[in-house]
Amino acid sequence: MTANEIKFIKKLHQKKYRKEEGKYFVEGKKLVDEALENCPHLIEFIYTSDSNFEASSEVNIQSISPKEMSRITALKTPSPFLAVIKMNSTEPKKKSKTLFLENIKDPGNFGTIIRSVDWFGMDAVYYSPECVDIYNPKVIQATMGSFFRVPLIEKASSELRAVGSQIIGATLQGNDLGEFVVPENFCLVIGSESHGISEDLISQLDQQVKIPGYGKAESLNASVAAGILLFAFSQS
Amino acid sequence: MTANEIKFIKKLHQKKYRKEEGKYFVEGKKLVDEALENCPHLIEFIYTSDSNFEASSEVNIQSISPKEMSRITALKTPSPFLAVIKMNSTEPKKKSKTLFLENIKDPGNFGTIIRSVDWFGMDAVYYSPECVDIYNPKVIQATMGSFFRVPLIEKASSELRAVGSQIIGATLQGNDLGEFVVPENFCLVIGSESHGISEDLISQLDQQVKIPGYGKAESLNASVAAGILLFAFSQS
Repeated sequence: MTANEIKFIKKLHQKKYRKEEGKYFVEGKKLVDEALENCPHLIEFIYTSDSNFEASSEVNIQSISPKEMSRITALKTPSPFLAVIKMNSTEPKKKSKTLFLENIKDPGNFGTIIRSVDWFGMDAVYYSPECVDIYNPKVIQATMGSFFRVPLIEKASSELRAVGSQIIGATLQGNDLGEFVVPENFCLVIGSESHGISEDLISQLDQQVKIPGYGKAESLNASVAAGILLFAFSQS
Repeated sequence: MTANEIKFIKKLHQKKYRKEEGKYFVEGKKLVDEALENCPHLIEFIYTSDSNFEASSEVNIQSISPKEMSRITALKTPSPFLAVIKMNSTEPKKKSKTLFLENIKDPGNFGTIIRSVDWFGMDAVYYSPECVDIYNPKVIQATMGSFFRVPLIEKASSELRAVGSQIIGATLQGNDLGEFVVPENFCLVIGSESHGISEDLISQLDQQVKIPGYGKAESLNASVAAGILLFAFSQS
């Protein structure tokens, strides 16, 4: 590897540079295989210290030494595989079916929601800058491969109006989901695990929807609530 | 504390004795407060090294020294609060609305499902012996207080027929949830995160149901799938 290549990947350890470059990296055989399967066109380079590794000829593969790997890895115990990938932040067309995640802090919740978005065939996920770092390995792992398929776009809540769809918030004061008339296009807002949707954003909502409860729990887990709403919205 | 009391609580560190005694313990102010709020009648003793702690007079509170606490705690850094609680494993009446969890290994998933069961007002959760230990603090935490309200009953899958309700499995081959006719009473089976419902149990199902998907994800997270099915079943 050249000194510049090493420097470049080390820069990608930082959120600021990932955003600036529009690139990130994943490590480990499983994630690199998932990227190869789901977004080979977005893979810029695969670096490997495993000389037996082969993949389709259209992907750039570079053999490196374990010593070089130890210089670029973010892991305590480096894996023989690291892939540099272009971010998939393609804005969906106006008037589509999207989610906006505000201040979701738990990586498992964030990743699980991406997986559900992929299952129900929604167009994209917007997320507020306060959310967990989406390149956190726990986020990527929880998506079970959907990370490489679903467009993920950072957006301030103040820009949400520009997406052009009805903005619908999941709240505990909303209209009952069982009787809710789902518009053709929507941006469904899921608020933070501990505080729900912020006051600022509440004032921007076109509608509010509530999942009816019949027991004593105060609320549902954020990724479960998102899953239920995506299911119900996909049925109408 | 007497030597016997200390010995008794130390026994409850082990799954085998918890089962034998029908008791378990939780630690930390938050969980002890949740237990006080949700199941004061099931609390046998609260041990505390905080001399300012007060609670309703109907609960047995025993002041102990920090040294005594360090002998009974399961935490590396002991909290000033430990409560010994009777298990809530009241069998629901025959023909009720229940869940059966087979081989759910992730504590977050298990706890999140209990929370959803409480939200939708279902009667109880059965679980196979291979599931994660339900007294794992991560399970209890993920339930957000529902742990103390929902009856949890260990059951081998071979005994499931005896619950007297229709046994419905969530599978990828089942009938579409959108057109599914939900019976009045049911035991909904959720299989393991990695392998789904075991072959043995598949052969015992009365019906299979599938959550329709429109994207490329292979499956949904187990707790999200359970949440969607509980929502849909609660609506019919």
